[in-house]
Amino acid sequence: MDCIFCDIIQRKSPAEIIYEDEKVISFLDIRPINYGHTLVIPIKHYEDFVSVPADEMNAVINVTQTISEAVSKSLKADGFNIIANNGAAAGQRVFHFHFHIIPRYNTDNFHFRPILKNYKNGSMKEIADKIRSAVTK
Amino acid sequence: MDCIFCDIIQRKSPAEIIYEDEKVISFLDIRPINYGHTLVIPIKHYEDFVSVPADEMNAVINVTQTISEAVSKSLKADGFNIIANNGAAAGQRVFHFHFHIIPRYNTDNFHFRPILKNYKNGSMKEIADKIRSAVTK
Repeated sequence: MDCIFCDIIQRKSPAEIIYEDEKVISFLDIRPINYGHTLVIPIKHYEDFVSVPADEMNAVINVTQTISEAVSKSLKADGFNIIANNGAAAGQRVFHFHFHIIPRYNTDNFHFRPILKNYKNGSMKEIADKIRSAVTK
Repeated sequence: MDCIFCDIIQRKSPAEIIYEDEKVISFLDIRPINYGHTLVIPIKHYEDFVSVPADEMNAVINVTQTISEAVSKSLKADGFNIIANNGAAAGQRVFHFHFHIIPRYNTDNFHFRPILKNYKNGSMKEIADKIRSAVTK
């Protein structure tokens, strides 16, 4: 299987590795949105957000908390975004699950948010009903 | 303390609630990027991503996995984004930590990603060194 992130884990591809333990690795994104844009991923290859088992996801999110604080403080960021894109339609390009940590500055003028929609009469409950029926606890 | 999400939890403000347990609640964002845009938050009030304790963050992320799958399947989305904005500079508006689940479609033509930067000679290692020194394990 051809996976650039697995290659990084196996040291077949170079990367600026920020952190590593048995379950999680973190390294710089080579094409950053802002400098210090960092990725956090499970060592084991899982395609996307929903396919990562709970215990590994917990390890990944906890490391993401630690690393996001380190990114933010060390680079004097004013804030940061945590982003996971699930599926090509959502902008996922590498199909080995990863969280992006993107340091943000008051002056960087990014506008992530497109125009917000409004729910028309009754449509909000309709959508909620659909989702609620699909929740498997 | 004035918090719209705490008001929703206490049923002082209306919301289309998708899911709730002892630690986590999920409801529709009232101003969706796409219909079915859902939020997942800890019941207890924590300001942002870094301030949520590990066990509650684990509960939140695991519910986020479950709900994102329900959103995606029930609304026949082609993918979805998981986003947490930390700090006003990153677009955080409500200072009660929340994950956004945003269903995405091949045809929705959102462009979240601004122009990607390149690291110049040596600057990638320099940035990585700064972050690595700030990681407290």
